[in-house]
Amino acid sequence: MKTIKVPEATIARLSVYSRFLKQLDENGVAIISSGEIAKGVDGSPAQVRKDLAYFGEFGIRGVGYKVKDLKEQITKILGLTYEWDVIIVGAGNLGSAITHYKGFKERGFNIVALFDKDKKKIGLTIGDAPIYDISQMEKYIRNNKVKIGVVAVPVPYAQKVVDVLVNAGIQAILNFTPCVVTVPEHVEFRKVDLAVNMELLTFNLVNYRNII
Amino acid sequence: MKTIKVPEATIARLSVYSRFLKQLDENGVAIISSGEIAKGVDGSPAQVRKDLAYFGEFGIRGVGYKVKDLKEQITKILGLTYEWDVIIVGAGNLGSAITHYKGFKERGFNIVALFDKDKKKIGLTIGDAPIYDISQMEKYIRNNKVKIGVVAVPVPYAQKVVDVLVNAGIQAILNFTPCVVTVPEHVEFRKVDLAVNMELLTFNLVNYRNII
Repeated sequence: MKTIKVPEATIARLSVYSRFLKQLDENGVAIISSGEIAKGVDGSPAQVRKDLAYFGEFGIRGVGYKVKDLKEQITKILGLTYEWDVIIVGAGNLGSAITHYKGFKERGFNIVALFDKDKKKIGLTIGDAPIYDISQMEKYIRNNKVKIGVVAVPVPYAQKVVDVLVNAGIQAILNFTPCVVTVPEHVEFRKVDLAVNMELLTFNLVNYRNII
Repeated sequence: MKTIKVPEATIARLSVYSRFLKQLDENGVAIISSGEIAKGVDGSPAQVRKDLAYFGEFGIRGVGYKVKDLKEQITKILGLTYEWDVIIVGAGNLGSAITHYKGFKERGFNIVALFDKDKKKIGLTIGDAPIYDISQMEKYIRNNKVKIGVVAVPVPYAQKVVDVLVNAGIQAILNFTPCVVTVPEHVEFRKVDLAVNMELLTFNLVNYRNII
């Protein structure tokens, strides 16, 4: 357990490092320097060393990092030595896309069920995941001790869905619905804001590239 | 045109501030302090002031910011006084979900067309956007001077699609396909990595919440 708060940007980069290290490991690379990691992930060697230093001494001075060891340490730090069961609320296009998203499966996130209120969808499956009636969600979460819920419902339903998840004892929520929702302190919460990504592009186009 | 490089995190926060200010403006709020902005977006007042200071002096000391003015200034900074035409490559679940995503439309991003290689999809529409044959994409981009392309194709096709976009003269690419692709320096590029968001949750659960 860490007592100092690690910056979120560091965690996000660890996630990227760990995927790069996995690739290296699969390609039989045994040792790597911080400079080579930096090059592989489009970062700086100092940043790589600083990020890793939050968690201890991993490298061997003048030699580098053992790829397999470092990969395993980061996997552990990120909480990915467990398989996490995830439910998705909303079996529309977005819920469907998330269920099929290869990036989740690869990292040990199992989409175990979707929930929807549309009677026509209930009983169908997306990939291997069944779609259940939203009225069953609270019970399902309790019985299966699900810890992570993804919200992919239309804007007017988002807060109601979040409230049900919280009541059912969910520990973490990833919200894809583009609106503000309120979540109590004891629940981990993140919003995936796709518009921010688009606006980082347009900012650069207008301010640095003289487009328009 | 700025000569100093503004941190990406600042731009991402500006995007969030501008949506909060839009809400305030719609609710008839005329003046706001940095403290109130901070509270509304779950940030700190010092951070708000620092972020805005990159772009000039917006506030009135001891009074605060004029909501409408500040909203308009930030909209301009982010390049959102223009309507941006966007094409999406891949008319699967993800492409469909992105086309319907309300967060884009609200911010002035128009999805003008999708491209796919599946003959069964060509000629259909998603929302108002037609699905065209991928073989027509390069010509379409040139003829319509499209500047932003979104990649939502399966992993094996991502690099090939990016190469076509670049050849056709696209200016910015948002990649949703969870794999590494190479883009030349002169093209703005961002990767939306959904797994990173999930891993920021699991890191917190394991390290700060004693879950598992």
